[in-house]
Parts: sequence; structure tokens; C-alpha cells
Amino acid sequence: MKKVLSAIILAILTLPCFAQEIEKWGRFEVCYNTSVKGNPYDVDLSATFTNGGETMTVKGFYDGDGRFVIRFMPDKEGQWNFTTHSKVRALNGKKGSFLCTPPSEGNHGPVHAEKTWFKYADGTYYYPVGTTAYSWMRAPEGYAARTIKSLEESGFNKIRCLFMPQNVGYDYQGHYPFQKKADGSWDYERPDPAYFQRIEAYVEDLLAIGVECDLILYHPYDGGRWGFDRMPLDANLTFLRYITARMSSFRNIWWSLANEWDGLKELPHEYWNKFGECVSEEDPYHHLISVHGYTATYYEYWRPWVTHCSIQDHAPVEGPGRAGTVKNIYKKPVVFDEICYEGNSTARWGQLSGEEELYRMWNALIAGTYPTHSECLSIKMKDKNIPSTNFLAFGGDFYGESWKRIKFMRSILDELPHPLYLADKSWDTSMAGAGDGYYLLYFGKEMKEEWEFDIPVKNLDFARPQKGEKFQVDIIDTWDMTITTCPTVFELGAPGPGNYRFKDVGHRGIRLPLKPYMMLRIRKI
Amino acid sequence: MKKVLSAIILAILTLPCFAQEIEKWGRFEVCYNTSVKGNPYDVDLSATFTNGGETMTVKGFYDGDGRFVIRFMPDKEGQWNFTTHSKVRALNGKKGSFLCTPPSEGNHGPVHAEKTWFKYADGTYYYPVGTTAYSWMRAPEGYAARTIKSLEESGFNKIRCLFMPQNVGYDYQGHYPFQKKADGSWDYERPDPAYFQRIEAYVEDLLAIGVECDLILYHPYDGGRWGFDRMPLDANLTFLRYITARMSSFRNIWWSLANEWDGLKELPHEYWNKFGECVSEEDPYHHLISVHGYTATYYEYWRPWVTHCSIQDHAPVEGPGRAGTVKNIYKKPVVFDEICYEGNSTARWGQLSGEEELYRMWNALIAGTYPTHSECLSIKMKDKNIPSTNFLAFGGDFYGESWKRIKFMRSILDELPHPLYLADKSWDTSMAGAGDGYYLLYFGKEMKEEWEFDIPVKNLDFARPQKGEKFQVDIIDTWDMTITTCPTVFELGAPGPGNYRFKDVGHRGIRLPLKPYMMLRIRKI
Repeated sequence: MKKVLSAIILAILTLPCFAQEIEKWGRFEVCYNTSVKGNPYDVDLSATFTNGGETMTVKGFYDGDGRFVIRFMPDKEGQWNFTTHSKVRALNGKKGSFLCTPPSEGNHGPVHAEKTWFKYADGTYYYPVGTTAYSWMRAPEGYAARTIKSLEESGFNKIRCLFMPQNVGYDYQGHYPFQKKADGSWDYERPDPAYFQRIEAYVEDLLAIGVECDLILYHPYDGGRWGFDRMPLDANLTFLRYITARMSSFRNIWWSLANEWDGLKELPHEYWNKFGECVSEEDPYHHLISVHGYTATYYEYWRPWVTHCSIQDHAPVEGPGRAGTVKNIYKKPVVFDEICYEGNSTARWGQLSGEEELYRMWNALIAGTYPTHSECLSIKMKDKNIPSTNFLAFGGDFYGESWKRIKFMRSILDELPHPLYLADKSWDTSMAGAGDGYYLLYFGKEMKEEWEFDIPVKNLDFARPQKGEKFQVDIIDTWDMTITTCPTVFELGAPGPGNYRFKDVGHRGIRLPLKPYMMLRIRKI
Repeated sequence: MKKVLSAIILAILTLPCFAQEIEKWGRFEVCYNTSVKGNPYDVDLSATFTNGGETMTVKGFYDGDGRFVIRFMPDKEGQWNFTTHSKVRALNGKKGSFLCTPPSEGNHGPVHAEKTWFKYADGTYYYPVGTTAYSWMRAPEGYAARTIKSLEESGFNKIRCLFMPQNVGYDYQGHYPFQKKADGSWDYERPDPAYFQRIEAYVEDLLAIGVECDLILYHPYDGGRWGFDRMPLDANLTFLRYITARMSSFRNIWWSLANEWDGLKELPHEYWNKFGECVSEEDPYHHLISVHGYTATYYEYWRPWVTHCSIQDHAPVEGPGRAGTVKNIYKKPVVFDEICYEGNSTARWGQLSGEEELYRMWNALIAGTYPTHSECLSIKMKDKNIPSTNFLAFGGDFYGESWKRIKFMRSILDELPHPLYLADKSWDTSMAGAGDGYYLLYFGKEMKEEWEFDIPVKNLDFARPQKGEKFQVDIIDTWDMTITTCPTVFELGAPGPGNYRFKDVGHRGIRLPLKPYMMLRIRKI
């Protein structure tokens, strides 16, 4: 019976290999069964895909059990034809084709960087509102589904998580990224496909709910237990070639070379550049790549293969505008991937109130950068298989206060005509522009009784406001999640002294509710 | 009579050419009179200097009136021998020697960058406390002497100033960096030595009072009047080779490629890299080089030729700690060369109170970076030859309040065992460490009635404090310039929760005078 079931599952699993219709930015997969002499993981295999004038060559990989697989993410509708290349006769010169259909609803393609912002391939702006759950993909069965449910309910659209196992005592159900040699040591030339398949299934789950997977390839939380944090250079490069051949065709994948790279003490600093260049070269779709360090240890994010900055540092988001300096320096998208966490941890990086977590997130956003959330609330759980009950560690359910405001935050971002930036750079650190005649003014912790209408003359490279233009203002409570439109229609007077600021022609303003975390949305009518 | 006087002056001027004793890091100069066919500025001339195992080749230059000059800054005591090289026979194979004597008092050699700090060549730390007077070298005679006097009285040890003339209406006494062709256009192949000689004399004056000269080679305040802001690439490289051959031997020279480089709209961005590489290659002593942009437009300071960051941006110094992020990113010394100025200008960059100017300077210092001062106080002056009476424009006298506190500021810096850094990085943005058991804690605008003894466990790469160690605290008023030693001797208890902070064993503290701009100096006994 077990054998029959396996055969059925195998049949279902192999079914997509012959699918003839794949949506744009979906994943085409073809597999060939054959046996080879020597290490099948060493077999060279690639395929060239053509569609009209477009040609792309992608690498294949060995998936175990005699299966050689080629995956491909088409970025153009219409018929794609392909031919395989290999020194192994049974894998060479195979031909096939499939039809690429229009993307389904919610499929905007992979995310890429454009100037200091992110865009999906279809041109829609992407505003990363991420969270972090390092080992949610290695929690016991069933637990990961709760993580997916939590993400869906909260409105996060990105998650950071570890590829390699984390040394937290948990046994990981017998699978590791590599197989073992007879002597019990890791065989870095033979990955364990089962480990990758499990990760891939979860990346697929994230895709289904529109969440980008910022997959962290290395981390220092191995502590020498398995040694995946201290592999020789060759082993690392073999691993990177294998994972990019397998997983680049997932449209929601981001490559994070490491969490806290400078904690991997056995890897020389120059390795990160080698790894980055390798991934950048091997990934034919050029997914986003970055690397993340300890608090305030900034990597050389100016290197050409780095698509965006993935930073651990809370200082730039503890107050208004500071994060903008980091963006001004790198001229790439800046993601603050650790700003400390909401929680009651004994560690100082996990002791924020929900209010402080959300405040830091808005500070990042107003300055034109992007924040990443997580929480470290130690809630006593019944599941003894879970070594940690923090969302940060194994995902699961949220218990904090900030996550509840994330969907509301995203709804404000999704309405923007353009990603945020400081309209008057270092001169006004609370006023974000979002294109022509669209501003968000965040008061943060300041409680105000009133605000006199007042916007800067400068607006980055966008149209500057003009005398006589009319504006409407919404009062947004970022904590209590309310939006109240002010009935007054404001009209710009002549610019003030020095030609720096516009006020209302009658110097009118708005009464505010004397609460913290208020924001104004100011839009030209 | 006039001829006789000129002859005497010439004799005095040429005297140093034959001096046989030059102090270490002083300037040896030798000149040869000859006439050549063609453009004498095109003549190749160099000299190789040797002292024991040390050999250096430096370029010479044409100084007008048939004078070919070689200058050399020796960095080693003892006998130096030299031989000249040139295709011009009269300039080739000339030999000579001089004795390099120990440096005189106050001569610490040229300044260079070491990690994120500055050091003189003799190993003494250099703390740049600079000011700015763009065109002080081109003010009418006598006026520059007042600038020198002001610098000396105030305690600044660095000044930023323009090499090229500034379009402010003033006639600059007939001399320009280049000679003119018959058709009235500039002859970029023929510099005007008189213009350079005048600048050199002032650099010499600065040297005499221990002030570094951050010489700004280009600026956008030409506005097309002379066109020195839009010369062809070849002309720029010729100019850079000439000025480095002439002036690299001045030990107090720093090269600032530009003020507001992005304002020079006619120069493509990649020119700055070419200029930087040229100066770096041509200057045999590798003086400090940087380039300065508009507010918050950061150059690629990670380029190898950039020795330090010269930044215009006030946002990072408007509050505690933020400047440290910029330093963490670049890992080079960071100088905030424009943080807005004390003044009553109509422009928003010249409207700071003296208190605010000094506050921003201390914010920069505590975060381990360096601030630059100037003032824009429009004082009605009697001298009608001066088109602007701001110190920022033509130097002269200070009229503000912040400059008075600079000597006091420097005295605190000069006593430090090591340059400042945030002891616990992003976690404590007010507490600077200065090596083992030495801290400055700056309260800024916060007025405090008392402070409980409290220092971080971390101290960058320096010795961490230990339980039982004893500390003394000085209360420093940075505005009123007083230092009061607190009689209590504090003793560290065990570290607090999380092993982050030390308090006094008896939780003792200090009464503070409820004034802003207070600082504590905390030293291990």
C-alpha cells in the first residue's frame, strides 16, 4: 500500500514536467530519468529556451533517484521551444516546447531594484513590508501552515528565513542540505534533494499568498555543530551553483547571502564577494541579492552584484529622517532587516513595545527606506517539539501588537502613486513626497494640538507645488488605524522667505487629537 | 631703485634654493635658470632623491622667468642626495645634496588617515577642528593677515578655501591661474606662476600657525565668468599635474577636488574619479584627498583614492549618534565639511545660533567624526573693497559665539588618549570612548538634574571595564568652558541585566547644574 501511494505521489509530482501551459513568470519544469557513471550531481546539463527573438540558457540539476531536472521561468508570453545540452548522451539534444500564457491575478513577476525603489517585473511598485522567522521551514509538520496563515492575516509581503539548519537542539527530521560519506562526514559534492524539496514547497506556499522569500543562505548559528558555516570555498561554490540551478526559477525568491555575515568567523571577508558574484552569475533571472551583518556593521553594498542593502541597524530608524542618509549614500534600495524586535526577550534587541516597533517602521518608510518586523514574545506553548516559541525563531502565531497594524500600513503604501522619499532631503526629515502633489507627514511620538498647513517648495525631481494649488488633508492614526478627511480645502500662498516653504493662503491649519503616531496625507486636488 | 629692490627680493627668494639644511617634513627647493624652445611649461623635469635605502622621484615645474624648480619634502633625517632628469640638457643630470635635520617644535609632519582617524606622520593623533573662508587668499592685502590672526586666536587647525577665483565681482588684482592667449582666451597650457605663488605664501602662513590647508581645487561659483569650472579634460589634467608638482611638498596641504562637485554641471561625473586618480598618482607624498558635494549628495567615498569623506550634510549631526552611521558605512575618517553655519543669512544654511553650531560640532565629535565650522554673520564693515563681510566668504574677523569655544573644545580633544568612537555603537549614541577607561558623555540640549553613574560594557576593540574598577568624573560645560571635578570616586558593581551596562556599586551619581550642553569626562583611576 505504501509503495502504491508513493507511486501515485510520484506520478502527481512528475505531472508538471509535461505541462504545456505555463503562465508568465510561472515555473516550467522538465525532467529526464537516466543513470550515469560517477557522481550524478557533477553532470553538466543545461537547456536553451527561445521565444521569437528571445533566448535564455538555464542550468539543470540532479534531483536524486535518477531524475535530471530543468526549470525555467518564462518572462514572455507565447510559444517557447527548448533544446538540452549535456555530455551525457541521454540528456543531450532533448527538445520540447510549452505555451506561456498571461500571468494570473496577483502574479506581478519577480521583484527587482530600480534606483532606490523596488518594482515587480510588470511595472507595479513593490513596497517590502517584511517579517522574520528564521527556522519556520524546519518546524514540525503543521506548524508551518500556522506561519503561512499568520502571514496572510497580517499583510506581510516578505519573510526572511534561513536555508541552513539552526543549532537549536531540534532534530530536523533527518534531512540536511548534504548527504553523508561512509565515514560520517558531509559529502559536499552530494546535496540531499529532500532537504531542498521541502524548502521549495514552502517557497511555493509563500508564492501562493504573494509573499517574497528572502532566503538566507548562510548564518553563524551553526556553532560548529554541522559545520555548514565553515565549508571550504569549493564546497560553497558548488552549493551556490546547485541552489541557483534549482531555485532561481521561483519568482518570489530573494538571495540573502547571510544573516550576520561577520559572525561566520571561519569565512574570510572576501568570500562574500565571491559568493555574491557567483550567485549573480548563476541566477539567469538576476533575483535580488544582498548580505546582512551584525548591528551597524555595514557591508560594501556599493559592489555591483549587490542589488539592495539589507542592514541590521536600529540607530537610523530611531528618529525621523536618519534612514534617508543611508539611502543617499548607497543610491540603492535600503531595507533595514533588523531594527530590533517587539518582545520581552532578555536580549536588548528583542525588547521593543509594539508602539516602538511600528514607530521605527514608519520612520524607515517616511525616509524612503523599508523596515522589517519580527517579534520575540516568549509565550508559553504546549508544543514541546518547538524549541522556541518566538515568531522570530520558528514562526507560528503572532502575539504582539505591531503586526496588527501592518495590513493598514500596507494599504496606505499600496495607494501611493510613487514610493516615498524625503521631499526636501535633510531639511525636512518628517515630510515624505510620493510624486506630484502627494505627501505623507509623520509626527511620530510628537503629540500635536494643531498643524499649520506647511509643505516644502522642493519635491526631489517631481513637480514643485505652485501658488494657488489646492490640497486636501487626511488625518491618519497609524496606531488606531483610522483615516479622517479634513473638510478644509487648503490653497497655497506665495512661498515664504528664502523660497523654501508654502503655507496656506489664509494660514489655516488642522486641529489634531493630541495623540502620538499621527500622520497626515496631503494630496493635491 | 625699484630694480635694485627687485634684485634684492629675488636674491632673498632664491636663497632657499641653495639651503643645505632642511628640517624633516620641511621643504627643500632647488632651481635652475635656463631658456628652452617652445612652451617651458611642457618641459619634463624630475629628480630622484636618495637617503640610505630610501629613494623618491618627484616632478619639477616651470615657475616663470626662466626658473625651473624642484621641490621635495624629506621624511627621513640624514643626508639626501639628488640627481635631476630631463630631456633638456641644461636641466639633466644636475646633482646636489642637503642635510635633513630633526623636525622643529610643532612640526608633526603631514596628516594621513588611519582607519577612521587622522594621524600626523610622527604618530600624534590629529583632530581636525576646521573652519571655512572660501576666498580669504584673494582678499585685498592686509585682510588675509586678519584671517591668520583670527585662526590663531580661535584655535582652529584646518581651513577650507578655494584655489580658483570666485565670481563675486572682486577683481583679484590681475592674476588668474592661467595666462591668456593673444585672442584673450585662457591658455590652459600656461599657468600663471604669480597666482600660485600668492596661494603658496598663504599656505606657508597657515603652516607657521599649525593650520592644515584643505585646498579646494574646483568649485561651481565661477558661473561661466572665467570658465575654470568647465575646462576640457586635458586642461584639467595638465592643471592637476602642475599644482601637484608645485604644492605637494607643502606638508599642510590637503586636496579637496571640489566644493559642491555636483554643481559643476559641465563636468561629467566620471571626471571626479579621473581627477582623484590623477592627484593621487602625481602627489608623491599622498596627501589627503576628498571631494565635497551639495547637501546630502554623497560621493562614492569608497573609491581607493579617497582618503576620507568630506561631506556637506547637517542631518547626521542634528542629533546624537547619527554621524556614527556614516562612519560605520565608509570605514574611513568622516569630516562634515558643511553642517550649516552660525549666522544671520537669509539662506537657510547660514542661520544657526552659536549654540546650535557648537552643538552640531560636538555631536559629530562624540560619534567619532569631525565637524567644520564657519560663520555668515553680515556685519557692516568699512572696507568697501570687500564684496562680502562674512568670514565664510573672505575670512577676516569672527563675530559669532561658537568660535570662542573652539580652543576649549580642542583642549579637550588634545588630551584624549585615542580619537573618539561610540563605545557601544548604535546602542548608546551619547557615550564616546577614547581608549581604555576613558569616556566622554555628551548631554547636548538635554538639561539634567542628576546622572547615575552608568557606562557600557562594550568599548569597541578596547579593554572592557571590569567590576571593582574605580572612575573619576569631570563635569564639563562646553558652552561656558568650565571643568569641575566631582569629588566622588565611583566603583563599578557587577554588570546589569543582559551584561550591557555597569553602574556604581552603590548606585551613586552626580548632581548636574540643569544647563544644556553639558558633558562628562569619565576616567579610570
